[in-house]
Amino acid sequence: MDNQVSTSRIQKDMEMFEGFTSTPGQGITRLPFTIEVRKCVNLLAKRMKSAGLAVREDSAGNLIGRLEGRNPDAPALVIGSHFDSVRFGGNFDGMAGIIVGIEIARMLRDAAVTLRNPIEIMGTHDEEGMRFGTGFFGTKAMMGEVDGDYLHRFKDADGVSIYDAMICYGLDPVRIKEAARDYKKEIAAFLEVHIEQGPVLGNSGLNLGLVNCIVGMQRYIVTVTGRPDHAGTTPMDMRIDAMDCASKIISQVSDWAKQAGGNGTVATVGYAQVMPNAMNIIAQEVSFSVDVRSKDQASIDYIVGKMHAELERVCGEKGARFTVSEKLRVPPADLDEKLLAMLAQSCDKLGLSYMRLPSGAGHDSLQTAPKIDTVMVFVPSKNGRSHSPAEWSEYSDLANAACVLYDTLLTNFQ
Amino acid sequence: MDNQVSTSRIQKDMEMFEGFTSTPGQGITRLPFTIEVRKCVNLLAKRMKSAGLAVREDSAGNLIGRLEGRNPDAPALVIGSHFDSVRFGGNFDGMAGIIVGIEIARMLRDAAVTLRNPIEIMGTHDEEGMRFGTGFFGTKAMMGEVDGDYLHRFKDADGVSIYDAMICYGLDPVRIKEAARDYKKEIAAFLEVHIEQGPVLGNSGLNLGLVNCIVGMQRYIVTVTGRPDHAGTTPMDMRIDAMDCASKIISQVSDWAKQAGGNGTVATVGYAQVMPNAMNIIAQEVSFSVDVRSKDQASIDYIVGKMHAELERVCGEKGARFTVSEKLRVPPADLDEKLLAMLAQSCDKLGLSYMRLPSGAGHDSLQTAPKIDTVMVFVPSKNGRSHSPAEWSEYSDLANAACVLYDTLLTNFQ
Repeated sequence: MDNQVSTSRIQKDMEMFEGFTSTPGQGITRLPFTIEVRKCVNLLAKRMKSAGLAVREDSAGNLIGRLEGRNPDAPALVIGSHFDSVRFGGNFDGMAGIIVGIEIARMLRDAAVTLRNPIEIMGTHDEEGMRFGTGFFGTKAMMGEVDGDYLHRFKDADGVSIYDAMICYGLDPVRIKEAARDYKKEIAAFLEVHIEQGPVLGNSGLNLGLVNCIVGMQRYIVTVTGRPDHAGTTPMDMRIDAMDCASKIISQVSDWAKQAGGNGTVATVGYAQVMPNAMNIIAQEVSFSVDVRSKDQASIDYIVGKMHAELERVCGEKGARFTVSEKLRVPPADLDEKLLAMLAQSCDKLGLSYMRLPSGAGHDSLQTAPKIDTVMVFVPSKNGRSHSPAEWSEYSDLANAACVLYDTLLTNFQ
Repeated sequence: MDNQVSTSRIQKDMEMFEGFTSTPGQGITRLPFTIEVRKCVNLLAKRMKSAGLAVREDSAGNLIGRLEGRNPDAPALVIGSHFDSVRFGGNFDGMAGIIVGIEIARMLRDAAVTLRNPIEIMGTHDEEGMRFGTGFFGTKAMMGEVDGDYLHRFKDADGVSIYDAMICYGLDPVRIKEAARDYKKEIAAFLEVHIEQGPVLGNSGLNLGLVNCIVGMQRYIVTVTGRPDHAGTTPMDMRIDAMDCASKIISQVSDWAKQAGGNGTVATVGYAQVMPNAMNIIAQEVSFSVDVRSKDQASIDYIVGKMHAELERVCGEKGARFTVSEKLRVPPADLDEKLLAMLAQSCDKLGLSYMRLPSGAGHDSLQTAPKIDTVMVFVPSKNGRSHSPAEWSEYSDLANAACVLYDTLLTNFQ
């Protein structure tokens, strides 16, 4: 185990993937089931093969590289994260966890170690939910939670369903259920390395974060509908202005999150779309997202309750209509204490400092945690920046995470 | 003069133009310097020629059909309105005024009348400002108020300048100044027939509106810039959320207009654009329009002042930056009392009821009124609807406007 060798191999791998973006020069935009993802997955498969893994793509478009263990019937240790990105994001979010996994496979190969259990390095598809407004697609499919109806239900901004996007990508959506794993038999644990994407770990000066829980998330698309009249000739008291109504809701969302207070409670309107979006036409329709997260379900319920009540009040007063569509609902999840203890022991052994902390972001681990022993390791993010081209983590910190996981595997699963 | 003949000819003409839209089935979208406008202008030229007019396109892309008068040196009576549209608009806004003009030319031809002055039927280009965020382009060019710098300064959402758009349309932007008229010598009056686009005239049950003034307009694009962080991992007190700041301004705009009160004062945010516009990224940038109109300049100043003060306060508190770019500034304009009296006399003679009223919308007439004797005639809009596929006016009401203008020409300019 040599941190410097791992650092340089991880750097080389990470830099290979910087080009797979639809917004070159403006960060990584690698939306699910696009040519950018296809190119990325093809290269990931090559890197996995050269690390000695047997590679397959499942019917949901996840990429899985497997190294057999001594006992062919033992359940696998899955080390995974996602290869898709947000729009104008960074190169580390998701991809860092896959590359660290591949590095662990190389370390096992270099040391000629065969573990008791097989290990699988997994690149998951559409964790971010950036294109279809959903998220965690690959892990949901792995857990058996995606069916044909789901594939038809969600569409991108151009009206393309997940179903049709999969066909264009070269997958057969009819076979989606084949991605479901018999996880009780096949999977022993899910381990995810991820950048923190926030300022807490970085500010602490510690080497790594051991994640003990993940906040719950609820996400909505709200659509307010008014009437598209002429902005000059329609007196103020004869308008049904969707922008006026929507902005009177949006402007309160961050205040509700502050009122709910503590427990990692945040609420964000990051997306809004106006129809017809013309300077001299009163807005007919405004759609916007409301993303709410907290360790505490009651805080989430408070904010969502306020949203509904204020929509009723404001739209009622102005004569506008509204709809609220729930896009995502995941309860807060605790991670596996047994695995956390193993990782803490490995950190101590390697002389790496760490803290236990919650994750404010949703991750693939949020999907597996209720049913599979799951743990996450956070690597510091420079200035806490993420979902931005300014996102950065040190390659040596990624190598630290690889060394800790490698030691945990050797100590507990050999 | 036969209203029924005019009604049927006007209907036939109007229906010809319904197909020139880039959004078939969703109303008229005929943006300046596009293929839809080119097709529309080609057909207008044919209709003008068949009405006996000599047709030319000026260097700004305005279409002018001229009928000589008895005195070749007399200044022209220009009857005009615009052929471009808003997005998802109706078939009457602008086009009705051009078709009524062509009908008047046909009535003169049918009656074998030659007026003392020449008349010009004019279709103006880019009145709405929908593509470049400006407006009144054709009439501004006619008044000599557009230069090369102007053509380069304004760009559409794809970054195409007016200059480049003109080239693609087949015009030579270098020659823009040739569109400027020596209006003191060449133009005796500007007469515009237009649908009301509001509910006042329609609710009154009267036949026509004689417009005695046009509200002033000021239009801004405000851009608020924050920081694009992860919506899950960034605590509420560490955010610079452009959406939060922008919505706290937008939500007040309509309230300021109500406070300013009366005098046709309105304020509208019809356009907003969010960057990067993702549900799980805190908004980096929100741009939005603020369109303010009033007969009373002090009311406009009150709203614009509030906008600046609240931007300072809200963005100052949150650490966001902002810019305000003025897109349009036109003071309120009175129309010509002498022409209004002539039109009132013709209405009385023809037994048509009318009211004097202000225009809440900007029109080409707003550009000409300060320097050329200008008048407008409003035709009722069904339910006051406009800038919408639901826009409708009765063809017989358009024929009434044609008959009134025709009578005014015969009575005063023969």
